[in-house]
Amino acid sequence: MKNISLSIIAGLAIVASANGHAQSLLTSDEIATADTLANSAAGSHHAYDIVTDLTTKIGPRLAGTEADKRAVQWAKEMLEDSGFDRVTLESIEFPVWEREIETARIISPYPQPLRVTALGYSGSTDGEISAEVVAFQSLDELEKATGEQVAGKIVFVNLRTERTRTGRGYGAAVSVRRDAHKFAAEKGGLAVLIRSIGTDSHRFPHTGAMSYNEEGENLPSGALSAPDADQLERILASGETVEIAMNLSTSLVRTGSSHNVVADIVGRELPEEIILLGAHLDSWDLGTGAIDDGAGVAIVSAAARLIAALPQRPRRTIRVVLFGNEEQGLWGARQYAELHADELANHVMAMESDFGANRIWQFESRVEDERLPLMDEIAAQLTELGVERGGNEARGGPDVSPLREAGVAVLTLQQDGHDYFDLHHTPDDTLDKIDPQALQQNVAVYAVVGYLLAEH
Amino acid sequence: MKNISLSIIAGLAIVASANGHAQSLLTSDEIATADTLANSAAGSHHAYDIVTDLTTKIGPRLAGTEADKRAVQWAKEMLEDSGFDRVTLESIEFPVWEREIETARIISPYPQPLRVTALGYSGSTDGEISAEVVAFQSLDELEKATGEQVAGKIVFVNLRTERTRTGRGYGAAVSVRRDAHKFAAEKGGLAVLIRSIGTDSHRFPHTGAMSYNEEGENLPSGALSAPDADQLERILASGETVEIAMNLSTSLVRTGSSHNVVADIVGRELPEEIILLGAHLDSWDLGTGAIDDGAGVAIVSAAARLIAALPQRPRRTIRVVLFGNEEQGLWGARQYAELHADELANHVMAMESDFGANRIWQFESRVEDERLPLMDEIAAQLTELGVERGGNEARGGPDVSPLREAGVAVLTLQQDGHDYFDLHHTPDDTLDKIDPQALQQNVAVYAVVGYLLAEH
Repeated sequence: MKNISLSIIAGLAIVASANGHAQSLLTSDEIATADTLANSAAGSHHAYDIVTDLTTKIGPRLAGTEADKRAVQWAKEMLEDSGFDRVTLESIEFPVWEREIETARIISPYPQPLRVTALGYSGSTDGEISAEVVAFQSLDELEKATGEQVAGKIVFVNLRTERTRTGRGYGAAVSVRRDAHKFAAEKGGLAVLIRSIGTDSHRFPHTGAMSYNEEGENLPSGALSAPDADQLERILASGETVEIAMNLSTSLVRTGSSHNVVADIVGRELPEEIILLGAHLDSWDLGTGAIDDGAGVAIVSAAARLIAALPQRPRRTIRVVLFGNEEQGLWGARQYAELHADELANHVMAMESDFGANRIWQFESRVEDERLPLMDEIAAQLTELGVERGGNEARGGPDVSPLREAGVAVLTLQQDGHDYFDLHHTPDDTLDKIDPQALQQNVAVYAVVGYLLAEH
Repeated sequence: MKNISLSIIAGLAIVASANGHAQSLLTSDEIATADTLANSAAGSHHAYDIVTDLTTKIGPRLAGTEADKRAVQWAKEMLEDSGFDRVTLESIEFPVWEREIETARIISPYPQPLRVTALGYSGSTDGEISAEVVAFQSLDELEKATGEQVAGKIVFVNLRTERTRTGRGYGAAVSVRRDAHKFAAEKGGLAVLIRSIGTDSHRFPHTGAMSYNEEGENLPSGALSAPDADQLERILASGETVEIAMNLSTSLVRTGSSHNVVADIVGRELPEEIILLGAHLDSWDLGTGAIDDGAGVAIVSAAARLIAALPQRPRRTIRVVLFGNEEQGLWGARQYAELHADELANHVMAMESDFGANRIWQFESRVEDERLPLMDEIAAQLTELGVERGGNEARGGPDVSPLREAGVAVLTLQQDGHDYFDLHHTPDDTLDKIDPQALQQNVAVYAVVGYLLAEH
């Protein structure tokens, strides 16, 4: 049905254009309703209550664990209590990886402990191993290394993550986490240590997924906190041979499962056409998953609840999807795209809140040209909320990327991420880091955008 | 000899007074030398190099451990290379306490891990124990509790530490860490958990010493990080019974030892009279002891080195004392005061740098009235360095408190401590938290003050 809706929108755009933009695509009633939604969001603690409840009653919810199962049940009940017309659990399957022991220490020249965490899908050392360290400043440098340099050693990749508002710095660094182990393994390396992909200088190593190996076991791989990476760098700079002992004990069970939680506010005129608001329910195990992604769960759920409370249903269906196992490689997102392959043409727009809890500052789209005037008008409704219009190159968020790749239009409601990678994937991802007022602004933006898209 | 020097100073003060303050106690040559010292400090990386070397090559150095022994050797060599006339190791004895395992988790109603660290001198649980939690908001509240409320339970004391520039907030809260276990034990409590004595909101529990028990074993006692204390508080507020399992495995060997490291620049006229600049060499085991108290070690050592490099020795002896085992109850400081009991009258002034690495903003004294004019003039020399004159109620720092109690005059060169208790006694006490320029200001102040006191 995407083509139909596009032609409707294109028609409206022509009307607006013929009137020299004097006549809005949005009606005054719609604008009034959007204002009401924004005001309701500003006065509501609902989103903060949701993220409080999730992070307190469930806490960490690593995909496939018992806590993750409790989280799914929690989400189902939360959404059922929020005025949705139907809540569905869609089963998803994936391997379950867990950390058991993680220690590291410098043996020589200066014995001392290091703060390390295992990366997701890290293989297990099966007890403590020790070896000399060989250091690289980037993945490129490691890729060019010889087997002689690397064989039998612990490979340390010391790339720093740049702090940016958009997450660009993370994007440039994260391949170290995902792929360093492959290059190290090819060259006979024993294990991998990376400088955490993160922007803080606290003693928190940042976890996160490595690439998944369908057949074999990855090299044991861990991240050091930034101060520990600094320490190792200083000692290596002295020119002395550095020997490290480490124990990264992990487990991998290839047959795990969880659910995507799908909740619909069924459209009054075009119920089969979907505006998808996503977030992910799983979290890493180190923190309580407040900014990643309890905040997103709260934002999209609370925004949809405001729309559900309007006097009438919007024209199209508003669908909240709380994806399972985003963290270890978009397992829920990929299975959603497969399961719903036949109806992706009905996904009129998709977006995801998965970048923390700071304010949204930019509305970025990825739509066909015909829809740009509508995007501009919706973006203009957000000016009062502090949001500016971005370009038309949105990526939409991790869990909607399989939809985007299948041709679904996406939005990025871009949050200020300057401090997101201070907390991301660390024990420090906890409720106290969330500003309730910033959360309200996010809810307002998602409610306004979701509502206006569902009407047009 | 203190009386002699006091009468000299009193005499000078009368001269100054007779001249209506027009004539300074300080000569223009002395003021010029003080300016040279301050300028040398401002251009020197020496202090930063010292704290870098200590925290990198030794790292954590818990009193009585092998790392502490290496630290003593490191300190001796560092001071011998710094131009002192003699460096002496003075043996000290104390019990050696170490942590082995520290885990805690909520069993019910909402199973999840908690971030905990054992407090110094915590008894050992010998494996995991579990019990219901009973919460108190202060030590007073715990003190008033009945045995029925507390017996067999894990006692949680949830007092918040106020952020202040002077450390007043810490002073008001720290008795919870030291003494909660005694009240809990009296009432039959099983174990103690406290909200960390600290001002941050990171997932770092703060360790620190409990009161030492000469005869028995303390209750197993740990600190929760602030976000974990918040979490426990939220769950308790729901009114549900909370059960926690914890494993605090610790060891205590009553016959340990280390050294105070004492280094003198011998005075040219009054070699037996001492201006004591102190810091402590030991650290907690969680961080690398950068701000507590590697910074202090670096500040006083670098300041004394500048004085040692002057064309002539100062009139009195400048003594740097790097105290052993400050952290677990001033063991080194108390033994220094005992060992030097006969010569305390020769300790003309004592001060300690043990409050991090931020700039000094206040010069506070505790001297007899006759010495106040000199204090005022020395303080006036610090105006350009951003230091204001405080009162005459200085405490002088933890390790000089046994000297103060024995009648020795003390100074507090008060640093800005607004963020000191964010890092204090946590894994996050690492080199990256130190601003090299602030360290230079500290060295300048200590060098100027030490020099002028040694001359007068």
